[in-house]
Amino acid sequence: MLIVMKHGASEEQIAAVVRTIEEMGYGAEPIPGRRRTAVALVGNDGRIDPGRLDSLPGVFRVIHISPPYRRASRDWHPDNTVIRLPNGACFGAGEVVLIAGPCAVESEEQLLETARRVRAAGATVLRGGAFKPRTSPYSFQGLGEEGLRLLTLAREETGLAVVTEVLDPESVEVVAEHADILQIGARNMQNYSLLKAAGRADRPVLLKRGMGASVEEMLLSAEYVLLEGESRVILCERGIRSFDTHARNLLDLTAIPTVKELSHLPIIADPSHGTGSRRKVSPMARAAIAAGADGVMVEVHPMPAEAVSDGAQSLTPDQFEVLSSELRLIARAIGRDLAEPVRPAAVAGA
Amino acid sequence: MLIVMKHGASEEQIAAVVRTIEEMGYGAEPIPGRRRTAVALVGNDGRIDPGRLDSLPGVFRVIHISPPYRRASRDWHPDNTVIRLPNGACFGAGEVVLIAGPCAVESEEQLLETARRVRAAGATVLRGGAFKPRTSPYSFQGLGEEGLRLLTLAREETGLAVVTEVLDPESVEVVAEHADILQIGARNMQNYSLLKAAGRADRPVLLKRGMGASVEEMLLSAEYVLLEGESRVILCERGIRSFDTHARNLLDLTAIPTVKELSHLPIIADPSHGTGSRRKVSPMARAAIAAGADGVMVEVHPMPAEAVSDGAQSLTPDQFEVLSSELRLIARAIGRDLAEPVRPAAVAGA
Amino acid sequence: MLIVMKHGASEEQIAAVVRTIEEMGYGAEPIPGRRRTAVALVGNDGRIDPGRLDSLPGVFRVIHISPPYRRASRDWHPDNTVIRLPNGACFGAGEVVLIAGPCAVESEEQLLETARRVRAAGATVLRGGAFKPRTSPYSFQGLGEEGLRLLTLAREETGLAVVTEVLDPESVEVVAEHADILQIGARNMQNYSLLKAAGRADRPVLLKRGMGASVEEMLLSAEYVLLEGESRVILCERGIRSFDTHARNLLDLTAIPTVKELSHLPIIADPSHGTGSRRKVSPMARAAIAAGADGVMVEVHPMPAEAVSDGAQSLTPDQFEVLSSELRLIARAIGRDLAEPVRPAAVAGA
Amino acid sequence: MLIVMKHGASEEQIAAVVRTIEEMGYGAEPIPGRRRTAVALVGNDGRIDPGRLDSLPGVFRVIHISPPYRRASRDWHPDNTVIRLPNGACFGAGEVVLIAGPCAVESEEQLLETARRVRAAGATVLRGGAFKPRTSPYSFQGLGEEGLRLLTLAREETGLAVVTEVLDPESVEVVAEHADILQIGARNMQNYSLLKAAGRADRPVLLKRGMGASVEEMLLSAEYVLLEGESRVILCERGIRSFDTHARNLLDLTAIPTVKELSHLPIIADPSHGTGSRRKVSPMARAAIAAGADGVMVEVHPMPAEAVSDGAQSLTPDQFEVLSSELRLIARAIGRDLAEPVRPAAVAGA
Repeated sequence: MLIVMKHGASEEQIAAVVRTIEEMGYGAEPIPGRRRTAVALVGNDGRIDPGRLDSLPGVFRVIHISPPYRRASRDWHPDNTVIRLPNGACFGAGEVVLIAGPCAVESEEQLLETARRVRAAGATVLRGGAFKPRTSPYSFQGLGEEGLRLLTLAREETGLAVVTEVLDPESVEVVAEHADILQIGARNMQNYSLLKAAGRADRPVLLKRGMGASVEEMLLSAEYVLLEGESRVILCERGIRSFDTHARNLLDLTAIPTVKELSHLPIIADPSHGTGSRRKVSPMARAAIAAGADGVMVEVHPMPAEAVSDGAQSLTPDQFEVLSSELRLIARAIGRDLAEPVRPAAVAGA
Repeated sequence: MLIVMKHGASEEQIAAVVRTIEEMGYGAEPIPGRRRTAVALVGNDGRIDPGRLDSLPGVFRVIHISPPYRRASRDWHPDNTVIRLPNGACFGAGEVVLIAGPCAVESEEQLLETARRVRAAGATVLRGGAFKPRTSPYSFQGLGEEGLRLLTLAREETGLAVVTEVLDPESVEVVAEHADILQIGARNMQNYSLLKAAGRADRPVLLKRGMGASVEEMLLSAEYVLLEGESRVILCERGIRSFDTHARNLLDLTAIPTVKELSHLPIIADPSHGTGSRRKVSPMARAAIAAGADGVMVEVHPMPAEAVSDGAQSLTPDQFEVLSSELRLIARAIGRDLAEPVRPAAVAGA
Repeated sequence: MLIVMKHGASEEQIAAVVRTIEEMGYGAEPIPGRRRTAVALVGNDGRIDPGRLDSLPGVFRVIHISPPYRRASRDWHPDNTVIRLPNGACFGAGEVVLIAGPCAVESEEQLLETARRVRAAGATVLRGGAFKPRTSPYSFQGLGEEGLRLLTLAREETGLAVVTEVLDPESVEVVAEHADILQIGARNMQNYSLLKAAGRADRPVLLKRGMGASVEEMLLSAEYVLLEGESRVILCERGIRSFDTHARNLLDLTAIPTVKELSHLPIIADPSHGTGSRRKVSPMARAAIAAGADGVMVEVHPMPAEAVSDGAQSLTPDQFEVLSSELRLIARAIGRDLAEPVRPAAVAGA
Repeated sequence: MLIVMKHGASEEQIAAVVRTIEEMGYGAEPIPGRRRTAVALVGNDGRIDPGRLDSLPGVFRVIHISPPYRRASRDWHPDNTVIRLPNGACFGAGEVVLIAGPCAVESEEQLLETARRVRAAGATVLRGGAFKPRTSPYSFQGLGEEGLRLLTLAREETGLAVVTEVLDPESVEVVAEHADILQIGARNMQNYSLLKAAGRADRPVLLKRGMGASVEEMLLSAEYVLLEGESRVILCERGIRSFDTHARNLLDLTAIPTVKELSHLPIIADPSHGTGSRRKVSPMARAAIAAGADGVMVEVHPMPAEAVSDGAQSLTPDQFEVLSSELRLIARAIGRDLAEPVRPAAVAGA
């Protein structure tokens, strides 16, 4: 951490910065420059609150040299975190995981048909929203607990693992009963009460990047989960805000090599929410895998035109099948492969 | 609402759009163009879920002509909403309200001294965080219920109304016991469980715009509160994300005349979080009032250099006093005025 | 085009809009709605200036339904534009073109060594700046005409086609003498004097997207070139501005399927400027091809640490070789292939 | 400048950074940290090209501590630059300058009527485009030299100074003959050939911020003009790109106190282009003055509904009169005042 002083800061002001750093238990080393002095804080262990330094008189700004998170950082944990699900699917060990399913769980028939089709095409995890966070209060809000029950049914029948979203601390327990992975949605990426509750539920957490959040902020949100003792966090790029409205969001695929460099946590991409348009989902899913993602999460619906939410961005099962075979070739082009398909029933019945 | 068909959409596809609109209970009017056909949806009452239309075959895109919110819209509610607090301070009736206080409640002495100084300078509402949402888990998280107790003490002693943040549905009740206004922070603007809980607490709600949220999304979040029966929502512009990092956030003051046009709800600005730097707080507070804001919320700390959070953006009480007198002149330049100062003790003791 | 009237616009105001549209030579069809009336403009041929309508009394806003460009639009020109260079490399016909070379031309030795190495690895076009637009006036500004001379030498010796940037209308002629493709840089995307001059030079134009430009604005800038009679425009995504600074720019790969849908022009990506960091160039080059780009432009330098500009984002020739073989496999995964390598000397000497 | 090494960079890599800095003629001071080493560059005179350091092996990133511009920086030039026009209007000396006029010069009658009305209301500078840069080639491109002739006529008759845009280096001379201030538009902010030509024309330069440009980049563009020997540069905030489309651009008024802190150059705001909507122009003009701007530039048209460009954002002369009287009161609220009105004819005839 570097505390840059204003042009013309006094000797007393510099001394006060040094003193404060030392009081915080770190080392301080002033670096006089031609226009201004800076003070280096030595010994940063990733747990400093810069608030006290920021506001000292004569301080121009505080520059973070090392990242402000610790448990999520590759500096302190050089090996990839590997997350293995009960059905064998595995994030972070090299294979590419396909997560697919409808935006929202609508009915037993819709969910089971989708589950069977996506498993046949190579998916190993089933997605499906039971509790839906919607920008407008007039939009469909999900089936709730009935949706969770149907997800469990689909898992039993197909052997797919299940990921579904949890919206508030109260629901963590019931969602964790039915899901293999708890999803924290983009709108809740900085809902710290929820992050803490999810971190205590003994389930891997899929943390989606907020639409207005930086990669660093996503890693700091992951740090909240990690600090509760849950080490199995999967990050997800799903598009951020941009001035160009040609797509619903701007899928920031550079976040993938960035996260790989900064952190040991696996990262996947969601090209369905990340583009908002069916015609762009397959190109961007391919791009995500080519960029090094550990998986993709894709919305698939047997009848997109009748979906109660996000139909415009759902692939048909046939389109997903084509995509899956392209993804396999791309994964191999960079020395990876798709996850092995799960065996139905056998898995659940074993 | 306008459903724009693709260039080359078939007659059947257009007919299916018309049929779907009619099934939803609205009127449909096709408009053939030179390159493509569009279908107008007639009778939009602000409660349409566009999901079904978006995904019909042959649809290029859906354009919202009227806003997707209803209760927050000036179209349906032409007069300003007026929100009067127990101590007489009033949003939306023309006067300009000054909300001031520390970022976080730290101690009885710190809070009471700040409260007395800001009241003397013209503030009528005291701000102060008891539960603090922090990007980093290593930052100070607030005093919790002890902070709420101190806020009540400050209200009793000074007559200032109190606004403080609530972080999760579980805490709504306890915060509502101590606060005159419940604040929903920027990170929770789309935390719908929290919005609904706040909307049932019988307290005015101060809703801060998310860093990555559009004005329309802020109004849709307000709609969640309004639908629970709570009509007293105060909006707050506090800076959004921008590619330029010269300030912590980009304070979007144009949101003020925009909200005035689209909605009947009052709107204030928070130049402290909106800039992140003490030297910019006063200029931007003045700009907000000149642009027509119904108030400003400003961080004031008796010793900014010792603040446990956000010291870098806190004004001293002396700086706030100067600002307040400038704001009074600016308010008068556009035919408004500051709210009358509250009378201490008398108010509480009356 | 749809002219949306304000809630409460008068009959006279609506009639004035209809009259104005008719005076402009188009049809007008009013669509009365529940909250407001809209007027559809029928017969839009992509050449309307909306200025007159925007400002009529009672108008709320003007919505473009069809794109405001015509020659660049796929609506009017359904087949891909195919651009074949003198050395046989071809954009828009399915093959993937590799453009590689140093950021700036520095010396004969540097340029020729790079050219030989990238040709051997599969590149068919050589990039290299002779005139450099630099954010800071203190940065290296290029060798100028001497740089052009060296590019011609490299073309003669290797058979690679040459693309290089032109900075102002005065230099178009001299650059066109030495280059197979004229590059218009991101900072000049809306320099209309330059676009017009380039459109008259009888050379294909590589138009880079501005850092703050939408896809639609890029297509409107292409329209300036097309209107001068030059139909050979290659678009280039090179990263846009974003609030997250983890990469120098945010490479918007979704622009690739978007352009493919809206326009018949070929589009490539520049992951070097698009990320600013060597470690991210190869992942994002792979992602661009997987997303459907017609090529990539990559900075390669024999000694990146000694490059006078942009060394941090240059690949070594060895890294480029690895990348090229990955790109070939990815291209094949989606039914494409790399362009055939050019034959040296023979090509120039033929 | 701080060169941050990667976690695990070798001693040799650190030594190479030190050696390179010393070869560049600056001092180097390594700062060992707990996770990584950084090397401080001492003696930065604002003229360093970081390219060589960025790309050395083992370098993680280069952090600018002091700004990369020198002549535009307040560090080296603490007093405000004061720019006095021939008619007495003055930027940077405390008074607030009103610049007003039509977006485009359309006719003698339109221009003269506007000029008389805005002068009567307190403007001292007349704006009006003769050469217009337009996003679409189908939009009105200006009257060209005839427009310049009309501007000269208006100056002679009213005593107003004239500011008008120059689009390319070739036109600098002819525009400088007719204008008191040369305007460089937002799209050309990084057109370096144009900046250099304008810097040699012996006229003050009004430099508008690019829609995708940071404040630092605007100051670096100003540096190009200053280096040509022209010290009279007026900066102009006119709105940047944002994810929210409620206004055409996002007027970044925080740039005003930011520029005041970083630079000695005057800065004004253009709320007409900065919002794109008449109803928002006056609130944002008031906000700009309240934030400390040295002036505003406002589009005024006698008949906005008939303007050939930007009618939707033009005020009527009556609206401008009301605005002017509000601005006077706001200027006084912060200890400034409007510029004295110019005397017609007398000025020109003296």
